[in-house]
Amino acid sequence: MHNPIKPVSLDRAYRLINHGPTVLVSARHDGVDDVMAAAWVCALDFDPPKLTVVLDKITATRVLVERSGLFVIQVPTVAQLELTHQVGTRSLNDEPAKLASVGVECFGLGDHDLPFVAGCSAWLACRLIAEPHNQQAYDLFIGEVIGAWADSRVFHDGRWHFEEADPAWRSIHHVAGGHFYGIGEALGSK
Amino acid sequence: MHNPIKPVSLDRAYRLINHGPTVLVSARHDGVDDVMAAAWVCALDFDPPKLTVVLDKITATRVLVERSGLFVIQVPTVAQLELTHQVGTRSLNDEPAKLASVGVECFGLGDHDLPFVAGCSAWLACRLIAEPHNQQAYDLFIGEVIGAWADSRVFHDGRWHFEEADPAWRSIHHVAGGHFYGIGEALGSK
Repeated sequence: MHNPIKPVSLDRAYRLINHGPTVLVSARHDGVDDVMAAAWVCALDFDPPKLTVVLDKITATRVLVERSGLFVIQVPTVAQLELTHQVGTRSLNDEPAKLASVGVECFGLGDHDLPFVAGCSAWLACRLIAEPHNQQAYDLFIGEVIGAWADSRVFHDGRWHFEEADPAWRSIHHVAGGHFYGIGEALGSK
Repeated sequence: MHNPIKPVSLDRAYRLINHGPTVLVSARHDGVDDVMAAAWVCALDFDPPKLTVVLDKITATRVLVERSGLFVIQVPTVAQLELTHQVGTRSLNDEPAKLASVGVECFGLGDHDLPFVAGCSAWLACRLIAEPHNQQAYDLFIGEVIGAWADSRVFHDGRWHFEEADPAWRSIHHVAGGHFYGIGEALGSK
């Protein structure tokens, strides 16, 4: 069967998040996986690609990131809006079966021992660049992107094709309190 | 005449950029103003609100930020797409009359000695929190938001109303090379 998930070259990985989508952050340590939602993720460099993500001290995912030094940033779709809201408002600390309860399925990509969330449109595997002051003072984490993939039904030839894909593939952009906007129409400068 | 620009309470200022728009960064020092475009801006904290922005060493705006310790993050609209692309690809270092040539008009807000770009939908006046390591190693700047305003024709009652406003007010989200997406439809979790 044709696999629609294709690698994205690292020098174009920033394009997967450049338009500011809300993302899912996942991590694994010692047999435990967690997934949370984050609107506060941002590209930091092109090549090698780096990004920043804010991980609050109360999140279980943060502990897994700190212990494993690895995490995944993935771009959820309109079809995953409710999943995104649920993983963003429920904690593994309170519900050990959170992921199963929400209906999150994880799979593998490349040779990374990391949980990649099924159904997303893009995935960036990241290695934590330890910056203890940023992490403690600002909850700010820096990652180097070490692998990138996208679903070719919505990202191919190095760019997003939201305008041609099923609207269920569009990225979602959280404002506050479970209110999101989907990404809209393509616009170009002259 | 009715002024549509209204203050936004600082505890809700993060909502102005939470959905990931491409922004304009402006700064002033010693009588010189500059404005650049930046997709790499991100909320960092709620209250007091903070944000991060990546400012490349080649930009003239960065020098003004470093010298004055102040800057403005503002949210441009679909109507300003070409202006955004132009200020993002032309440099004050090459063109001392860049702003006039592009057609950027600045005005004042509050008692801040800062250039606020006319026609945007929202403005966040920021005080630089000096973090020399981040600035040198990553081009990463942290600001505390000390004043926030929005145009009430598209942001009021503490949230965006893109779905009811003229489409020309929508935020723009840069992918690469002058290709943008406008923000799309409102979506809510259950």
